Amino acid sequence: MKDTSKISTAVIRRLPRYRRILKELKDKDIERISSNELSKLTGFTASQIRQDLNNFGGFGQQGYGYNVDSLYNQIGSILGLDKEYKMAIVGCGNLGQAIANYASYYRAGFKVVSMFDVNPKLIGIIINGIEIMDYEDMEDYLKANPVDIGIICTNKSSAQEVATKLCDCGVKGIWNFAPTDIVVKENVVLENVHLSDSLNTLAYYISNSGK
Amino acid sequence: MKDTSKISTAVIRRLPRYRRILKELKDKDIERISSNELSKLTGFTASQIRQDLNNFGGFGQQGYGYNVDSLYNQIGSILGLDKEYKMAIVGCGNLGQAIANYASYYRAGFKVVSMFDVNPKLIGIIINGIEIMDYEDMEDYLKANPVDIGIICTNKSSAQEVATKLCDCGVKGIWNFAPTDIVVKENVVLENVHLSDSLNTLAYYISNSGK
Repeated sequence: MKDTSKISTAVIRRLPRYRRILKELKDKDIERISSNELSKLTGFTASQIRQDLNNFGGFGQQGYGYNVDSLYNQIGSILGLDKEYKMAIVGCGNLGQAIANYASYYRAGFKVVSMFDVNPKLIGIIINGIEIMDYEDMEDYLKANPVDIGIICTNKSSAQEVATKLCDCGVKGIWNFAPTDIVVKENVVLENVHLSDSLNTLAYYISNSGK
Repeated sequence: MKDTSKISTAVIRRLPRYRRILKELKDKDIERISSNELSKLTGFTASQIRQDLNNFGGFGQQGYGYNVDSLYNQIGSILGLDKEYKMAIVGCGNLGQAIANYASYYRAGFKVVSMFDVNPKLIGIIINGIEIMDYEDMEDYLKANPVDIGIICTNKSSAQEVATKLCDCGVKGIWNFAPTDIVVKENVVLENVHLSDSLNTLAYYISNSGK
């Protein structure tokens, strides 16, 4: 396999979509697919798809197309989905609980192993077998029981403090759902989910549709 | 203002981020900002920022930069945020309730006005002043009380049926949180939030960091 550490973010962001669609094909027992057919399903051009996949050594064969199962597995391996990730959720309101439920059924590889909140009404509650702990105890707990990914589901004003603490506890990545831009240590990967950006984009297309 | 209906999606997707950062500057009583300073805050290059904003007629002045308040308002207006959007949520588990709470504090312009679920345990519960109704009654209700945006927070297997019904009820846009690709009527705008794509991207960067 080629060195995949210098692929552009735009390509990386398309890979999960390819993989999701390949999963649906696998579930329908479809064994192979051409870049043209993948184009129809993904909305990307066939030439873009071929270019994207060439970045990783090109898995297709002229006249045959791609083997669905093999491409699915190879994309999973490029994305690091053949590994296990331990995750901690900070902020266990509706959103934190929704993410805990989501992660638990999404993939065995992503495992929520601890949850923290400041709200006494939430501390002690069990979500998917995980007891919500007091945020005050987070640093001690995570230093003894480290996780790979910290998930921030707090409000805007607490997000930066939580992020800094999670970095101090040695997380490798932060998945941030708080509606603000946070700063993390240089070697920590940050992935923001800005729901407001998505909603604003939707509003733009609605208010400009029909023009 | 220039015709903004043919701006590329990539530009549109950057606008909410500009606006979010301008809001933070406004809150700090900062009145003007150069494209270089905006570059540091957004992570985009100054030249990209100038190009992006030129699409809309260019609001900056050589040697002065951008007026924060005016740029904030103009981007809001381009995004259609000076209008009101009525929204219905379908699927009122943790995620649906989280979105309802989120939308209610996010902006007065986006208003959740109805919520639907199939689960008898949820029907009748009141979230932010909105009573969860039986999904069976959705079509009749939304035809009499139309909404602009339908928000799908159901599981994967129900998402397409819900999307089709929402389209039949005349929604202008669908915000889809179900982890699947759905198809909507031609004149309906679709915005997917694929949490798994975001998590997979994070996994890629974690597993490739340090390489």
